[in-house]
Amino acid sequence: MVTVLRIGHRIIRDKRITSHVVLVARAFGASRIIIAGEKDPSLISTVEKVIAEWGGFFELKMIPEDDWELFVKQWKKKDKFVIHLSMYGENLYDFEKSVSFKHLKNHSDELSKLLVIVGGKKVPGKVFQLADWNIAIGNQPHSEVSSLAVFLEHLMPDILQKMFEKAGKRIIPSVNGFKKFIKDDDES
Amino acid sequence: MVTVLRIGHRIIRDKRITSHVVLVARAFGASRIIIAGEKDPSLISTVEKVIAEWGGFFELKMIPEDDWELFVKQWKKKDKFVIHLSMYGENLYDFEKSVSFKHLKNHSDELSKLLVIVGGKKVPGKVFQLADWNIAIGNQPHSEVSSLAVFLEHLMPDILQKMFEKAGKRIIPSVNGFKKFIKDDDES
Repeated sequence: MVTVLRIGHRIIRDKRITSHVVLVARAFGASRIIIAGEKDPSLISTVEKVIAEWGGFFELKMIPEDDWELFVKQWKKKDKFVIHLSMYGENLYDFEKSVSFKHLKNHSDELSKLLVIVGGKKVPGKVFQLADWNIAIGNQPHSEVSSLAVFLEHLMPDILQKMFEKAGKRIIPSVNGFKKFIKDDDES
Repeated sequence: MVTVLRIGHRIIRDKRITSHVVLVARAFGASRIIIAGEKDPSLISTVEKVIAEWGGFFELKMIPEDDWELFVKQWKKKDKFVIHLSMYGENLYDFEKSVSFKHLKNHSDELSKLLVIVGGKKVPGKVFQLADWNIAIGNQPHSEVSSLAVFLEHLMPDILQKMFEKAGKRIIPSVNGFKKFIKDDDES
């Protein structure tokens, strides 16, 4: 399963954006996120609450901001690889046509080797050098939240129908749009 | 071209999330966003700066939060229709198979009739009733930023390669990932 690395987190400035990045990582099928930035207990409690309510396996780890580089270098030492998302690099639609992308898409067991990096407004230049692929989620400014979602959904195209195990409750999709829930107990 | 309505904006609480929603709307091909919430001049200046630098046509309008309902009702009066994105309703992947979605996707001239609503954490229940379609961008909590991006990209699948006119500068996609720019003047 995919690991996401978010470089940069300031509690006051980034509280909500980072928490949306975390939620996107989980909802779009990553199993782990590393936050390199200010230690922020509220992110841990966000994740704990979401898992209790909506299920699934998901891990959040915080490391000091400067440790991102060591983390990435160690990751790459173990035959693993790194994709960095931003507005620079190869367009996602071109990358999708590559053998590498198709291989990843068709070998979900290899997704555990993948680290996806998203930054904030300013990413250290070294990230571009260390990444195996720099992928542009378009060449217009938008958001690390949307970049991560769009990339993961291209990689795992059924992800928005994924079932999360051991959910406290689950929404039943329904055309009329109203909120229908079942508890996992109801299914037995 | 698509119009987006964002319901709810508090300057302090939502500053960055709303600005990411605005950037996503623009980058993923909408031509207009209506923000129903606290009047926030910084959003206008964000949009102005982005257009000056990256080009294209995009309009931002702010209305008082409670006026969202009147806006939606007037929209619907003119043979126009409303899609509301959240974690409730018909799954995006099912909606994509519908005649309505396919029609929209193949008739880009009709996209100007479309209003896409995204809310914040709590959306008035009436939104669900007024929307012609309530579409679930998956049934897990994530973000209005990612929901809007994923939906618009499904609707306009080449959008991440769209060229924006009259850009002050433009990024050249390049596999090595470094930042290469051209100015529009260079192209003449």
